[in-house]
Amino acid sequence: MGRFLMACRAEPVDCTPVWFMRQAGRYMPEYRRLRSKHSMLEVLRSSELSAAITLQPIRAFDVDAAIIFSDILPPLAGMGLDLEYVPGRGPQLSHPLATKSMIDRLATPPATETIGGTLEAIRLVKRELGAVPLIGFAGGPFTLASYAVEGGGSKHFARTKRLMLSEPAAWDRLMTKLVTVVTDLLTEQQKAGADVLQVFDTWAGVLSRFDYERCVAPYNRKLFKHVHALGVPILHFSTGTSAYLDLVAHCGGDVIGADWRIPLDEARKRTGKPVMGNLDPTALLAPWRELQPRIDFVLDRAGGSTGHVFNLGHGILPETPVDNVRRVVDYVHAQTTKK
Amino acid sequence: MGRFLMACRAEPVDCTPVWFMRQAGRYMPEYRRLRSKHSMLEVLRSSELSAAITLQPIRAFDVDAAIIFSDILPPLAGMGLDLEYVPGRGPQLSHPLATKSMIDRLATPPATETIGGTLEAIRLVKRELGAVPLIGFAGGPFTLASYAVEGGGSKHFARTKRLMLSEPAAWDRLMTKLVTVVTDLLTEQQKAGADVLQVFDTWAGVLSRFDYERCVAPYNRKLFKHVHALGVPILHFSTGTSAYLDLVAHCGGDVIGADWRIPLDEARKRTGKPVMGNLDPTALLAPWRELQPRIDFVLDRAGGSTGHVFNLGHGILPETPVDNVRRVVDYVHAQTTKK
Repeated sequence: MGRFLMACRAEPVDCTPVWFMRQAGRYMPEYRRLRSKHSMLEVLRSSELSAAITLQPIRAFDVDAAIIFSDILPPLAGMGLDLEYVPGRGPQLSHPLATKSMIDRLATPPATETIGGTLEAIRLVKRELGAVPLIGFAGGPFTLASYAVEGGGSKHFARTKRLMLSEPAAWDRLMTKLVTVVTDLLTEQQKAGADVLQVFDTWAGVLSRFDYERCVAPYNRKLFKHVHALGVPILHFSTGTSAYLDLVAHCGGDVIGADWRIPLDEARKRTGKPVMGNLDPTALLAPWRELQPRIDFVLDRAGGSTGHVFNLGHGILPETPVDNVRRVVDYVHAQTTKK
Repeated sequence: MGRFLMACRAEPVDCTPVWFMRQAGRYMPEYRRLRSKHSMLEVLRSSELSAAITLQPIRAFDVDAAIIFSDILPPLAGMGLDLEYVPGRGPQLSHPLATKSMIDRLATPPATETIGGTLEAIRLVKRELGAVPLIGFAGGPFTLASYAVEGGGSKHFARTKRLMLSEPAAWDRLMTKLVTVVTDLLTEQQKAGADVLQVFDTWAGVLSRFDYERCVAPYNRKLFKHVHALGVPILHFSTGTSAYLDLVAHCGGDVIGADWRIPLDEARKRTGKPVMGNLDPTALLAPWRELQPRIDFVLDRAGGSTGHVFNLGHGILPETPVDNVRRVVDYVHAQTTKK
């Protein structure tokens, strides 16, 4: 078993494993070349293109895991929402959820229908990867609900929170459907060959502790109960949740993602679990003399290589220099190798 | 001395004082009526209009403080940046700071030149307010720097952080100029009659603990050292800073603002100071049966009326029902009155 899987189980490793969220992305010239010929939806539907992109960072860097190239939103299209990828603006839903009857009409199609290309890409990638573990993933129910209600990004998430607080029965129906869908998405990815699964509850940090506990945690607990039964390590990622990371961890996950706001010693203390993170992605835009002490801070607060997966606190930014990515991977490996 | 000023000094009060950030704003019909006839810049330049808007919520609700109607950005215009208020999009700077020489050219004009209308409005309002204390305010240096560099709101603050990490000398010049400007803004507002001063470091929560400590805290400490010498209570507000609220408090401020993410007992423990907050503004969009338990949670975690100023964790949203605002004020007063 490689060091990434061992770190997920809090077992001793030869050095700290490293991977990056969005490690296959616009900062890589080979990614930009491929995307200049194919739209996002084309890539997501084509198992060959998804597989090729997934492998780009594996060939370029000594990262310890691959993550299947996909997106958290296509399942919402499968549920009946209109999803578009607008160049330069990101994903948009042109008819976001606005009424109870729209929620009632949402379908819960199986993952084999909504992400067939991704499942096939997992099979293709597994043949190429050798010993490198492959991560499959899905959005967290709250994060998917927010996209479905806001139609895209949001400053205050006011529409989502208003639905959550004012229409508890509709919120329950929506979140219950999403738990069903996300459970199946993760199950099918594991069956297709994913060695690790990650739940991206990216926007869970816009809530109060009171609201996370009452309106989100019950659904996350159900979800994690199902996916822990699959027997592979589960990564539970969120941002902005420093103040209730204990609740996040309590919902489930073998490894808890932490954004850069909370030092990893505190994240470990709050969660009692292995942690993943937590360099600020913008630190990768800085010269090495500024980047290095920030990596050192992460490693220092992680308190050693056991139970730590090195990552950013969020996805790599498109303007990141490729050389910095390579240098971080090699530096983390070297610094944490037992001498 | 009224209960708001006493709460700022952690002295016992008859009940918990209440005010709201953006309590004079678009959710009030009388505000919308006035703004339909005058642009934002007209209002900011006119001491009569600013004073009239400041008094609107004082006449409508039993709030315990007034805050002068103004904005944190006009001083940036005074420093040489192009500021526009675009209806529906908020403030925009058409030529954000992009080079070291632009930072070198920034002026540090006195507050009497940049916010003369606001200073005169403070004098006008003071004549009308009677015993109600008046809050003057300014943006925190980091938040102003972010606006100046990004040109408006931002998702990742990548330009600001890149400058901060890659150009330490330019960052130092920018932040030093902002400390000078903000110190004078607050000093002149106190001289004009403000009873309390608030620093809005709204975006300080996008940083890591490492970066807040090294790149922001030294400037905030200088700023607070100057303004504490003015002898009035200082409120130090930020959002998203749960994980390093101790550092925020250590920079200065008599009362530390907390957003809704962190329960107030934890905020109090982390800061060792009186706290202000921290209802999620979106809770005011909910029906009373959902709003009330969320107010109760805030009051319960505040642990009694001493050293607590009730507020939202950020500004009132424009779609807030006026009746909910009135009801929250009266409910907090009633619930915290010693029986």
